Amino acid sequence: MKYVYLFQEGNKNMKELLGGKGANLAEMTSLGLPVPSGFIVTTEACNQYYENNKVMHEEIKKQIFEKIEELEKITSKKFGDKENPLLLSIRSGARISMPGMMDTILNLGMNDEIAISFSKKIGNARFVYDSYRRFIQMYADVVMGYPRTQFEEELDSFKKEKNVKLDMDLSAEDMKHLTEKYKEIYKKIGNSDFPQDPRKQLIEAITAVFRSWMNERAIVYRKMNDIPESYGTAVNVQEMVYGNLGENSGTGVAFTRNPATGENSLYGEYLMNAQGEDVVAGIRTPNPIATLKEKMPTIYAEFERIAKTLENHYHDMQDMEFTIENGKLFMLQTRNGKRTGRAALKIAVDLEKEGLITKEEALLKVDAESLDQLLHPTFDVSALKEGNIIAKGLAASPGAASGKIYFTASAVEAAFLKGEQTILVREETSPEDIKGMVKAEGVLTVRGGMTSHAAVVARGMGRCCICGCADLVIQEKEKTLTTKDGKVYKEGDFISLDGSTGNVYDGLLRKVEAQIHDDFETFMSWADEVRHLQIRANADTPNDAKQARKFGAEGIGLCRTEHMFFNEERIFPFRKMITSVTDDQREKALLEILPYQREDFIGLFEAMEGLPVIIRFLDPPLHEFLPHTTKEIRALAKSLDIPYETLKNRVEELKEFNPMMGHRGCRLTITYPSITRMQTRAVIEAAIAVSKKGITVKPEIMIPLISDPKELHYVEEIVKDEAEKVLKENNISLEYLVGTMIETPRATLFADVIAETAEFFSFGTNDLTQLTYGFSRDDSSKFLNTYYEKGIFEKDPFAKIDEYGIGKLILLASKKARRIRPSIELGICGEHGGEASSIAFCNKIGLDYVSCSPYRVPIARLAAAQASIKANQSK
Amino acid sequence: MKYVYLFQEGNKNMKELLGGKGANLAEMTSLGLPVPSGFIVTTEACNQYYENNKVMHEEIKKQIFEKIEELEKITSKKFGDKENPLLLSIRSGARISMPGMMDTILNLGMNDEIAISFSKKIGNARFVYDSYRRFIQMYADVVMGYPRTQFEEELDSFKKEKNVKLDMDLSAEDMKHLTEKYKEIYKKIGNSDFPQDPRKQLIEAITAVFRSWMNERAIVYRKMNDIPESYGTAVNVQEMVYGNLGENSGTGVAFTRNPATGENSLYGEYLMNAQGEDVVAGIRTPNPIATLKEKMPTIYAEFERIAKTLENHYHDMQDMEFTIENGKLFMLQTRNGKRTGRAALKIAVDLEKEGLITKEEALLKVDAESLDQLLHPTFDVSALKEGNIIAKGLAASPGAASGKIYFTASAVEAAFLKGEQTILVREETSPEDIKGMVKAEGVLTVRGGMTSHAAVVARGMGRCCICGCADLVIQEKEKTLTTKDGKVYKEGDFISLDGSTGNVYDGLLRKVEAQIHDDFETFMSWADEVRHLQIRANADTPNDAKQARKFGAEGIGLCRTEHMFFNEERIFPFRKMITSVTDDQREKALLEILPYQREDFIGLFEAMEGLPVIIRFLDPPLHEFLPHTTKEIRALAKSLDIPYETLKNRVEELKEFNPMMGHRGCRLTITYPSITRMQTRAVIEAAIAVSKKGITVKPEIMIPLISDPKELHYVEEIVKDEAEKVLKENNISLEYLVGTMIETPRATLFADVIAETAEFFSFGTNDLTQLTYGFSRDDSSKFLNTYYEKGIFEKDPFAKIDEYGIGKLILLASKKARRIRPSIELGICGEHGGEASSIAFCNKIGLDYVSCSPYRVPIARLAAAQASIKANQSK
Repeated sequence: MKYVYLFQEGNKNMKELLGGKGANLAEMTSLGLPVPSGFIVTTEACNQYYENNKVMHEEIKKQIFEKIEELEKITSKKFGDKENPLLLSIRSGARISMPGMMDTILNLGMNDEIAISFSKKIGNARFVYDSYRRFIQMYADVVMGYPRTQFEEELDSFKKEKNVKLDMDLSAEDMKHLTEKYKEIYKKIGNSDFPQDPRKQLIEAITAVFRSWMNERAIVYRKMNDIPESYGTAVNVQEMVYGNLGENSGTGVAFTRNPATGENSLYGEYLMNAQGEDVVAGIRTPNPIATLKEKMPTIYAEFERIAKTLENHYHDMQDMEFTIENGKLFMLQTRNGKRTGRAALKIAVDLEKEGLITKEEALLKVDAESLDQLLHPTFDVSALKEGNIIAKGLAASPGAASGKIYFTASAVEAAFLKGEQTILVREETSPEDIKGMVKAEGVLTVRGGMTSHAAVVARGMGRCCICGCADLVIQEKEKTLTTKDGKVYKEGDFISLDGSTGNVYDGLLRKVEAQIHDDFETFMSWADEVRHLQIRANADTPNDAKQARKFGAEGIGLCRTEHMFFNEERIFPFRKMITSVTDDQREKALLEILPYQREDFIGLFEAMEGLPVIIRFLDPPLHEFLPHTTKEIRALAKSLDIPYETLKNRVEELKEFNPMMGHRGCRLTITYPSITRMQTRAVIEAAIAVSKKGITVKPEIMIPLISDPKELHYVEEIVKDEAEKVLKENNISLEYLVGTMIETPRATLFADVIAETAEFFSFGTNDLTQLTYGFSRDDSSKFLNTYYEKGIFEKDPFAKIDEYGIGKLILLASKKARRIRPSIELGICGEHGGEASSIAFCNKIGLDYVSCSPYRVPIARLAAAQASIKANQSK
Repeated sequence: MKYVYLFQEGNKNMKELLGGKGANLAEMTSLGLPVPSGFIVTTEACNQYYENNKVMHEEIKKQIFEKIEELEKITSKKFGDKENPLLLSIRSGARISMPGMMDTILNLGMNDEIAISFSKKIGNARFVYDSYRRFIQMYADVVMGYPRTQFEEELDSFKKEKNVKLDMDLSAEDMKHLTEKYKEIYKKIGNSDFPQDPRKQLIEAITAVFRSWMNERAIVYRKMNDIPESYGTAVNVQEMVYGNLGENSGTGVAFTRNPATGENSLYGEYLMNAQGEDVVAGIRTPNPIATLKEKMPTIYAEFERIAKTLENHYHDMQDMEFTIENGKLFMLQTRNGKRTGRAALKIAVDLEKEGLITKEEALLKVDAESLDQLLHPTFDVSALKEGNIIAKGLAASPGAASGKIYFTASAVEAAFLKGEQTILVREETSPEDIKGMVKAEGVLTVRGGMTSHAAVVARGMGRCCICGCADLVIQEKEKTLTTKDGKVYKEGDFISLDGSTGNVYDGLLRKVEAQIHDDFETFMSWADEVRHLQIRANADTPNDAKQARKFGAEGIGLCRTEHMFFNEERIFPFRKMITSVTDDQREKALLEILPYQREDFIGLFEAMEGLPVIIRFLDPPLHEFLPHTTKEIRALAKSLDIPYETLKNRVEELKEFNPMMGHRGCRLTITYPSITRMQTRAVIEAAIAVSKKGITVKPEIMIPLISDPKELHYVEEIVKDEAEKVLKENNISLEYLVGTMIETPRATLFADVIAETAEFFSFGTNDLTQLTYGFSRDDSSKFLNTYYEKGIFEKDPFAKIDEYGIGKLILLASKKARRIRPSIELGICGEHGGEASSIAFCNKIGLDYVSCSPYRVPIARLAAAQASIKANQSK
């Protein structure tokens, strides 16, 4: 078995064996680029090490030293030689770049004797001892696991003693002194001398890399990212080159294009007379890469040429590390560069225009999720600091918001009039809060989940919102907000919300406004060409619908009619309807509601101009619509002309233990068929009004929450009866569909019988997930974090569809339904409809469409395209 | 096609064609018993009538009049003859006795001419005109659908005019007068004369019976009882016999044995000189059947002989109708008699002893559900009146209770000391109410379902309880209870609760105490011989367990460990545990809980003496255990030595939107593994303590509410680790099982993977039903009634298992599990475990056991036996 490869023996396709970094070093070598020579100990050697009870096999050692001999020939240096020593860097390199793994050991191969004679030879003792002392510290740290503090303290106190500020100001003698001190510390900690045998140093260092594959951080990271343990890590052993040999030397990092904007020009920075760690440490300010053109025009030209070569070769933007040693350029690393969503899109479009990649390849180069950044303002990355996070809630509606906190809608309104930027903070919101939500930059609630009032309304208006932030406690009376750590925020204090992550930050943060890139339309049109899934939007109002169409929605997959009543003016008749005791009261309330509904449906149909519009009939979890405060109940009682006590009793009666599993969905319309009649009338009358204007209308009436075929059958008969009545009244004919949501586990079991009645299915994956797992989204956030920590769940089933549980039920139901009604229209409308992996699943099982919130439509379009491309590739 | 059968042409096995009543009349005829002659128009004739657009086919009419001719020969009377007329009774008779169908027309064949000459012939004009006017009224009512009121008003005003009280006091002339008046009324209502043609009368009457098959009440009844429309009804046409011909005539009803006690002696009553309707009308008081022995010894002897013949023939207790006409006995009907549970049991055992039936047949003769009456006090049937029902709730714990209402536990206690019988009425109960529950006769709550605190505790103590009685509103401050109709009950007013039906009655009702019948043990031992399913009990305390064993439980199928804390002394440390913020607090609280748990487990193991005991680890829906009132929170805060505000915030934090889908079950133990460790320790330490006394112990540890195999795997590892630790500490070895509840839909999908870890499954059909349908039991009572009314659901899925939905998941999971672990122990422990049709289902799919509440164990034993017998029969 061959365990060790010279760089010239490998190539970029050997990542499994050589690791990512090693394969790219090999590739650059074979491209004839200036790469310091070296070799790679393979991932198989790592696995062999673990199979062999964590002892490196003699065969591997033998092969390592054979390669050392070859390296000596190539470099004309000798490992362990006093006059002309071969010094090495050791770096880990797994198949996939992995934080938590051992990083780097530099200057390996140095010892006391070599330091003395090598200093003499090159006449630069300062450089040699600087390298030696760094080596000792790195070796102690990463090979032996000794703490770094004692070494750092020694350096600091010595600089103080010498009264210098920078390491650079220390002399050769000083470095020699430090080297001795470091060796003493090393001996004191581990009770053994620093190893003087370069061969021992090498084997120990490589073994340390192997060991780091199984350190705790690496294990956790692999679990989180689904990386098998069996991958193992490779080890890169490479001749040292020095950027710190004087003003003719230097080191830097650069991208072939701008990773923030995608602009096609070199982007990066460098420092002269420095080693890599100096660039990172931030003590000296690096120079922009462009200035290298003046300083070292030949080097810059060469680097530009190399960058272009690499990009052409890898067909992607590259992230490179380089070192200049005495006026000679060396490439230390290249890899596909990370980039912002904006840059990813521009680079993908440009690369296609440059003929480097196909449209399909371009589509795969952009993380669908990253498009979110293009559509919402975000915080300036440099402004975000982990330490500033004061709480974490549910990322309910994306965007970035900063402002003063206020605890009531009216306080927000007052502050708004004074020109203040505000954050509305509430236990949970109710329709009375909408005035405040409109005026606030962002909304933060302590209770409530992704489908709570706050979340739904905020998403609808594109307002940043964090929900269910249980880390915080509100003292409404005192107007304070207390964090888990006991920090108290008063009314008027500043906080910032990142609606895309759910993080709540202390203070005011810098924002970057959303900018739709010029290439956005081009790119999205490519996506539309290849995708099979239709993308619809969840839109409850004409405004939502317009927004959705702007983002490319091909229909409305879910209009939640009860959300049309989430504002103060309309909540009133709705509450009347809900709290009605007699049929008469209810009929009256419904008559008040009808015009609102019809008006909204007209708006929706007009906005969608002939695209399909699925209108879900009322599915109000009662508690969201009940009046709560004495004041609200009094007002309603007065309007209903009934005693306060009577209404209060009625409200008590309507309260539910588990509203999610309560009197909602079709259950409500079965109890009160007049609701169904009113809604049918509103839909059909609106459709007639709009079609009379010459606009095609495709209403699809959807009955929610059925668990038995008979429920649908019962409601469908009422819908058809009323619809025919309205059409007859207007002496007109019009096509419409009647379908249902499949969102209870039982409905999936009876999908075939249901399909006898239903003309379409929309899988409600939110409720289906809740019921199949048996936990509600609003409550589960309390324990799901523990599940992730303990590795019981790998992902949030409310975010990414549970393919093997929920997905199985959906697949089963789809098959059953198509057997009975082959033309049945199938889609999903839960939050999953806007998430890439869930969209891929929907594509795989052959659904017709996914529906998501308007702002996620572009993401869904791209994810659907990527799913199509990948499905084709794997054929 | 033969549409009409003489009685002598049929037999008891022809119920499908001849209907129940007709088949039995035919059977009695062929047994040579004195039955007035007659014939039956078949159910097929009824179906033909509907096929023929509700017109009776000429062929059927032809056959009817052919049989009339034969009847004339047999009776030597002539239909329509003036001197010697054949008068007929017409009665409906479906396959299954059905309320709402047309009942009876008597004296058909009478008209003006016949009345005159017939009166002369028999010299009894009063009798003839009495018969005639009755006939007119019945014909008007059931054939023509005319209202009865005008006829009744005429009779009443005429009696007033004549100044008589009883019909009997009216003379022949009076009857004649009434007949004329009735004919006038008849004509006035329908604008046509009363038909004088007997043949027309006959065909119209038979057609009216056919029509009544499709009247609304009949349709509703069929739907409710799953009787197909295609059955149709037969019509019995029979020669009239008269019990009202004088003191030598009479009529009565009797059972071959006592239907209340089962005692083997004739039981019934009769009236001399009366027709059947007089017995029912209750104007005269009938005499006990025994007195007939003195009055008419020969008739009585004949009747006794007939009764014995019928019993021997039908192998069951008979319910008979008879008439004595001028000293001659006629049998008008026989059928298997309805009986109380107590009688059913005694009769079944006696019949077996008498050699009339086998043990299997005896077992099938007792409705399993009726055993409930034997184990709980019940109200005296005669005391129950529909009109007295003031509200209906959930039948949470069976029994009968009457008493004064009180609204707090302390008021109940005070009243108890004064010797009062009380009913505790609460919005919902909490552990603080237990003192009151112990002292009250019964418990009534307005909120909460079959698994609420009140229901669980009441069942555990065998206390009568009605829960979730949403018809009532409590005004706690005013100490009043208001019904839907606005009636107000004050503290101290009397009400009665029927815990077996959920009915709440006004006032104090007479009770019948529970009496375990002598034959109970014999009967149950027969059941045990034939059943395959093991019967376990849901028992949470040693007392429950003892009770369960008394009733024949073969193990504990569910010990809900959180219920061990449903009392005031123990709730305190439990609340501490739940509200703990730090691990340290929680550990301390757990240490307080451990001794309680261990002590209870010791009691359980001792009570069950080696029978299996399934202990479900904590599954507390948090809200049931949180302190609610300021007082409770203050007390707890003091004991935890933390500020009131802190605890109040913590309590707020722990509140859930949907507790049923919240932080409960294994989720709690995954978050806080120390709970699992404490419980494991308590179980194993208790098992060790008991086994040291020489008693075998079979603990089965059950992890609730898993939705993913990894959850079980995680908890199981902790359980095994702690168990081994305890065993090692005690230097002992002991067998125990670790299994799980399958109660989320997702768990059923992964049953095979779960069975790799689980050594047993207990299907939690309560939660499984809730989650699969998507409605909670506590909330669904609000809309399920509408579902039944509208025919969408036929039965309560929480009472009878939903075979095609939930049942399918259970079957699927069982198959998957057995594929992986053939020996896996499978059972159910939801409320369905005590319901007969659900038990039959469990038997069918081959589960190992069912588990139910202690008082239902006998019911389950019998239901399981019946399921086994029926399964054998259908093989």
